[in-house]
Amino acid sequence: MMIRNVSISGIGSTEFGKLRDRTIGQLAVDAAEVAIKDSAVDRRDIGAIYLGNFVSGMLTGQEILAGLVGDNLGLGNIPCTKVEGACASGGIAFRHAYLAVATGLYNAALVVGVEKMTHRQSDTITQALNCAIDQSSDGPSGLTFPGLYAMAWRSYDQRYGAPREDVSAIILKNKGNGRKNPLAQMKVEVKAEDILNSPLIADPLRLFDCCPVSDGASSLLLVASDLLPEKASWDIRVAASVQTSGSARLAGRNDFCSFDATVAASRGAFKTAKISPEDIDLVELHDCFSIAEALDCEDLGLVERGMGLRLAVEGLSQVDGKLPINPSGGLLAKGHPVGATGVSQIYEAVLQLRGLHANQVHDPEFALTHNLGGAGVACTVNIIKRAS
Amino acid sequence: MMIRNVSISGIGSTEFGKLRDRTIGQLAVDAAEVAIKDSAVDRRDIGAIYLGNFVSGMLTGQEILAGLVGDNLGLGNIPCTKVEGACASGGIAFRHAYLAVATGLYNAALVVGVEKMTHRQSDTITQALNCAIDQSSDGPSGLTFPGLYAMAWRSYDQRYGAPREDVSAIILKNKGNGRKNPLAQMKVEVKAEDILNSPLIADPLRLFDCCPVSDGASSLLLVASDLLPEKASWDIRVAASVQTSGSARLAGRNDFCSFDATVAASRGAFKTAKISPEDIDLVELHDCFSIAEALDCEDLGLVERGMGLRLAVEGLSQVDGKLPINPSGGLLAKGHPVGATGVSQIYEAVLQLRGLHANQVHDPEFALTHNLGGAGVACTVNIIKRAS
Repeated sequence: MMIRNVSISGIGSTEFGKLRDRTIGQLAVDAAEVAIKDSAVDRRDIGAIYLGNFVSGMLTGQEILAGLVGDNLGLGNIPCTKVEGACASGGIAFRHAYLAVATGLYNAALVVGVEKMTHRQSDTITQALNCAIDQSSDGPSGLTFPGLYAMAWRSYDQRYGAPREDVSAIILKNKGNGRKNPLAQMKVEVKAEDILNSPLIADPLRLFDCCPVSDGASSLLLVASDLLPEKASWDIRVAASVQTSGSARLAGRNDFCSFDATVAASRGAFKTAKISPEDIDLVELHDCFSIAEALDCEDLGLVERGMGLRLAVEGLSQVDGKLPINPSGGLLAKGHPVGATGVSQIYEAVLQLRGLHANQVHDPEFALTHNLGGAGVACTVNIIKRAS
Repeated sequence: MMIRNVSISGIGSTEFGKLRDRTIGQLAVDAAEVAIKDSAVDRRDIGAIYLGNFVSGMLTGQEILAGLVGDNLGLGNIPCTKVEGACASGGIAFRHAYLAVATGLYNAALVVGVEKMTHRQSDTITQALNCAIDQSSDGPSGLTFPGLYAMAWRSYDQRYGAPREDVSAIILKNKGNGRKNPLAQMKVEVKAEDILNSPLIADPLRLFDCCPVSDGASSLLLVASDLLPEKASWDIRVAASVQTSGSARLAGRNDFCSFDATVAASRGAFKTAKISPEDIDLVELHDCFSIAEALDCEDLGLVERGMGLRLAVEGLSQVDGKLPINPSGGLLAKGHPVGATGVSQIYEAVLQLRGLHANQVHDPEFALTHNLGGAGVACTVNIIKRAS
C-alpha cells in the first residue's frame, strides 16, 4: 500500500465558550472558512469533508452537519461524512481526512469538529453525554462520567497515592495556560484554595476538576505534501494518525486507572512515526477531568506507571518544562465542545509547530495529540511534525 | 493509487419490523454475527468496523454503537467508526469499509447498519427524522419529509402527469414483493382500494405511499478478493461505490423532481464500473415514498425524464420484468430502519447475485443499490457484480 505524505496546510477555530449567537452549522462553517483561507489551497481542490460531532441531534435537533457544511461552503457534490466516537469524534474525523489524502483518494480534504451544548439545561446535557456509556451494561448503575473518573482517582490513590494538592497541580497549570490562550473558555485566575472551595461533584472530584460544557468548532485543511502551495509558509506534516477502540463497559476493562485504547493507539503512533516518547516536544491530551491527565500520560508511555502526577507537581509539564502538556489549557481550561476537541488539539499543535502559539513551547519539532471517547471506547493518537 | 478488488463474503440481517425484545446494540451484534459466520473469514482478520446509524442518541439514548459492536464481538482494539448522513448512513458505512479494504489498509472490514425507532411516540420520531432537514433554512417552515415528497409529486404531476393509479402501481409492486420476503416488515396484502382508503398524510401522499417506521439491523463482511476463503461458494464483488452530497435546503435545489446527489453518484458509479444502465439486472433503490421510486429511476439514468412511472405501470420493474426494481419490497414494504437501509439493500442484492432470493431475478450479473439521505443531502450508489 502506498501512503503519501500529508500536510496540514490550513487551520481555523472559533473561540470556545458560550456562543449563543450562532447555530451549530454556522460555528462549523465559520471555522472551516478560516481554515480554507489559511491554507492557500483552492477550495475546488477539496475532495471530501469529515466532520466530528457527538450529540447535535439530541442537543440542537440538527444532524447531517457534514452535508450542511459542504453546502454552505459551495463545495458541490463531494462526499461529506459525519463520524461519531463520543468525545473522540473530532480525532476520528481527522484520521479519516488524513487517510483520504494519504491513500490518494483526494488531493485535499477538510476536517471540521463541532459541538453546541451550553444552551441546554444541565440534566439534558448529562443525558446526552451519557449516550457514551454502554446503557445495557452500565446504564442501570446510574454511572456518569464524573463518577467514573472519581472511581479512577480513588483507585489510583490506593495504588500510588494521589493527594488533592498533587491533582490540583494539573488544574493550576492548565487553567494558567488557558488564561493566555485567546480561544480558551476559562479565563478566570484559579488558586489552590478556589479548587478546595469549589463544590463536590463526585467525591473526590470538585467542580474545578471537571472540564466545562462548551460551544465551539475547529477545522483543518489537509493536502498532499507534494501539492502544498508554493506560497505556504510552513510544512507541518502528519507523522502518524492511529484510531483504536476499547470496551465501554466497566466490566470489560482490566484496570480503572488505564484505558487500553490509549495504550494501543500510542504504541501504534510511535511505531508508525518511528520515534520514541523522548522525541515529543509537546502534548495536547484529553484532560476531561484533572486526574485524566495523569492516567493519560502513563497510558501514552510518556512516564512510568505511578509517575503521572509528578509531571505537573514538579513543573515538568509546564510550557517551559521538559515535556509541556496542554499548553492550550486543555479541556479543563480551553473547554470541551465534544466533537470539536480532537480537531482543536491538532489546531493547537500546528500553531505550536508554526511557532505562533500564545503559550509557545521552545522550538518544537514533534507534537502528540490524544483524544479519548467515553470510558475509553474510542481513541485517536496523532503525531504531527514540522517538516520545514 | 492502487485499488484492490473487494468481495462481499458475508451477509447478515435481522428481520425488519417492531423488534421490542432487543436493544439497538443487540440488533447490530446479531446481524454482524450472522455476517461473520456466513463469510467463512476468521473474525481476527477484521481490521475495522463501520456502522451506519442516524438517530440512536435521540431515540434510544445510546451512541458509540460502533465501539459497542466491536466490544461485543471481541474484536480487540480495532478502529470502530459510526458514520451519519441521515437515511444514507448505511450506504456511507459500506463505502468506508469498501475503501478501507480497497486501499489496502485492512484485508477485511465489517459493515453494520442499524436503527431502533418503533418504541418511541410518533411525534418524537418525526422530531428525530427532522434532524435531516436544514433547520436554519427550512426548519421554520414546518416542513417534514412527507410534505417534501408531496411537493415533489405535485411538481412531477404538473410536468409529466402522475395520476394516483400510476403511483399506486409502485406501491402494489413493492408491497407484493415484500409479502414474499421473509425479512420484510409489511406482509399484509394491499389492493388499489386499500391505498385509496388509507389516511391522507400530506396531500396527495396517503399512508400507503409512506414507508413504515422500523427497527432492524443488517451487516456485511468485506474482504480483499484475493484473500477470499477457498471454501467461499460465491465471489460477489464491488464494481463501484460512490458517495455524494447535495443541498439540504429547498432553496439550494434546482428541481423538486430531482436530487443532484443521486445524478452525480449514479454517473460516478457507472463510470467506475465501466458499464451502462442497460447492463443492470436489478435495482434496490430508496423508495422512502412511492413517488420517490419514479424520481430515483430518472436520477439514476435508468429511464428518460418523465418515464419513471412507466416502469411500474407497464410491469417492467416487476421481479420478472425487464428491469426489476426493489424485489426486496423496498423501503415501502421491507421497512426503513434508517441506518440499516443502505446496508440492507446490498444484503438483498448479494442474495440475488447468489441466486438465493425469495423473489429471485433471473440469472443476474449486475445489481445497483441507491441510498438517499434527507432531501438529497447525501447519497450512495453501489454497483455489485457476480464474479463467480
